[in-house]
Amino acid sequence: MQQGILTNPADVQQVMLTDPLPSWNDSGVKQAILQFVAAVTTAGGPDYVPPAERIATFDNDGTLWCEQPLYIQLAFALDRVGALAPQHPEWRTTQPFQAVLEHDRQALAAAGLKGLAEIVAATHAGMTTDEFYAIVKAWLASAKHPHFDQPYTGLAYVPMVELLSYLRANGFKTYIVSGGGIEFVRAVSEPLYGIPPEQVIGSSEKTQYALQEGVPVLMRLPELDFFDDKDGKPVAIQKFIGRRPIAAFGNSDGDQQMLQWTAAGAGRRLMLLVDHTDAAREFNYRVSPMGRLDQALTEAGQRGWLVVDMAADWNRIFAFE
Amino acid sequence: MQQGILTNPADVQQVMLTDPLPSWNDSGVKQAILQFVAAVTTAGGPDYVPPAERIATFDNDGTLWCEQPLYIQLAFALDRVGALAPQHPEWRTTQPFQAVLEHDRQALAAAGLKGLAEIVAATHAGMTTDEFYAIVKAWLASAKHPHFDQPYTGLAYVPMVELLSYLRANGFKTYIVSGGGIEFVRAVSEPLYGIPPEQVIGSSEKTQYALQEGVPVLMRLPELDFFDDKDGKPVAIQKFIGRRPIAAFGNSDGDQQMLQWTAAGAGRRLMLLVDHTDAAREFNYRVSPMGRLDQALTEAGQRGWLVVDMAADWNRIFAFE
Repeated sequence: MQQGILTNPADVQQVMLTDPLPSWNDSGVKQAILQFVAAVTTAGGPDYVPPAERIATFDNDGTLWCEQPLYIQLAFALDRVGALAPQHPEWRTTQPFQAVLEHDRQALAAAGLKGLAEIVAATHAGMTTDEFYAIVKAWLASAKHPHFDQPYTGLAYVPMVELLSYLRANGFKTYIVSGGGIEFVRAVSEPLYGIPPEQVIGSSEKTQYALQEGVPVLMRLPELDFFDDKDGKPVAIQKFIGRRPIAAFGNSDGDQQMLQWTAAGAGRRLMLLVDHTDAAREFNYRVSPMGRLDQALTEAGQRGWLVVDMAADWNRIFAFE
Repeated sequence: MQQGILTNPADVQQVMLTDPLPSWNDSGVKQAILQFVAAVTTAGGPDYVPPAERIATFDNDGTLWCEQPLYIQLAFALDRVGALAPQHPEWRTTQPFQAVLEHDRQALAAAGLKGLAEIVAATHAGMTTDEFYAIVKAWLASAKHPHFDQPYTGLAYVPMVELLSYLRANGFKTYIVSGGGIEFVRAVSEPLYGIPPEQVIGSSEKTQYALQEGVPVLMRLPELDFFDDKDGKPVAIQKFIGRRPIAAFGNSDGDQQMLQWTAAGAGRRLMLLVDHTDAAREFNYRVSPMGRLDQALTEAGQRGWLVVDMAADWNRIFAFE
């Protein structure tokens, strides 16, 4: 992809035809990605990395798909409260459930993290892993994003999907390392991103092995097992993968430690943050209830990590555009 | 491998030359393995399984390598107590360390699981993950098994290594699911078994992300994170892989739940237990300080799981023979 040396128009056309990142404008960020991949895959070159060590880790919410106005998993949880309400008449007068049922954002916000944990426990536990997966799949098949009026499965960022494919075509193993629930993300990772379940890392609920009338099941318990955010991301990467990534992609301070951990390995590295700057096509935010991009952006500036300016760097965001 | 239909001597010879499991005697167990693999890989056949779902999980100690007279990781821990003793003069008069230093098996046994946890904490924590890996590698390069007088890395079971290769050649993804420490096993999984670190699941210590003079490290803490045995194995398989295995291999009651979980999936399955019956070439035991093969063997008999009789089914056990 050494576009600088192409002077023959036919060569230029060939490159254009085979551009692996067509939704990326020809900016410095795109060039840096192409150069990084060329460097680590050039056998005999100073930056060559064997395929087995080409590990790339991606945050999910806000990095691979839309996280506004709510994390998609949170929208699922709120919808589940509505669906389960007939079996829980007490929720009509019990917070935080009453707030959800009455669409009372103020009361919901007042319930805070403790309220959120109660909602997650009520909607994500008390069933087997197989049952939960089926519930998530059914919801994804019918629910729509309130702003875009599209299925949530249509809200993957096309440029990032291209990037995932491009990395895999160059021998990378692509992982999701999400603060979201590991089983929730697995319900979309293969169809949306081409990432199999064993390459999804995320937050988890405790599960318990049990025999139900002789049939083994894994029951989801209403208890947090692991929160895969901030410091938790490098901890989980080491536990699940046992190798340090050579490339890492995020969009918030929750990804800062993952990028630090990636950057600190020997050899050439790629660290990238997605900055949500496009109010017209998506959202423009750095601070929201869904987290903030602040310290990680400062560190990116100091250390030369790449920052995607969505409005400027991406000529397309969603497939439905 | 349909040996039954081979009547031409040249064909028989060809099969013999290409036998993927040469260290396995031509017993019912070997035939059942070959038939299972043929069935799940025959496109269009009733038992066909797509490659992505060909997940095989293997216990490590006693299934892939020798676990007698001590778990190899326990031998490592005891050696580390000796190596660290000069920095801990108090260990000369403090149990369980005194017992280790004086080779007092009775006092060590009396210290029980609590004593073992203290030894693990003292030898497996207080360093970074990278440092621990280097310590394990250095130990493996010099330590020898007391009975066989061979490096521990020479104690993999050749028939199981052949089986791993054979499964991978048929599109399987092979995982280790060990009660041993995940990082300890990763130090041997690639060179001994061809299994990369991201396909090793095991017990773990808690780790903590920290910046040491600006450099990110993962510190190993003296606290158990997860015990990957019995009920823990299906729990960990779901968490790490997110798919149910179609084949599972173990040697003790610690593997029973993994085999149950594997057996309970839809479609054709393979469950196998290694029974240590060879006092001449290895060890003959079902009950030992390293666990027991009792209830799992009963269930194997009831449900038709395969049982390897090491003395009868394997014509070779170790590479050094």
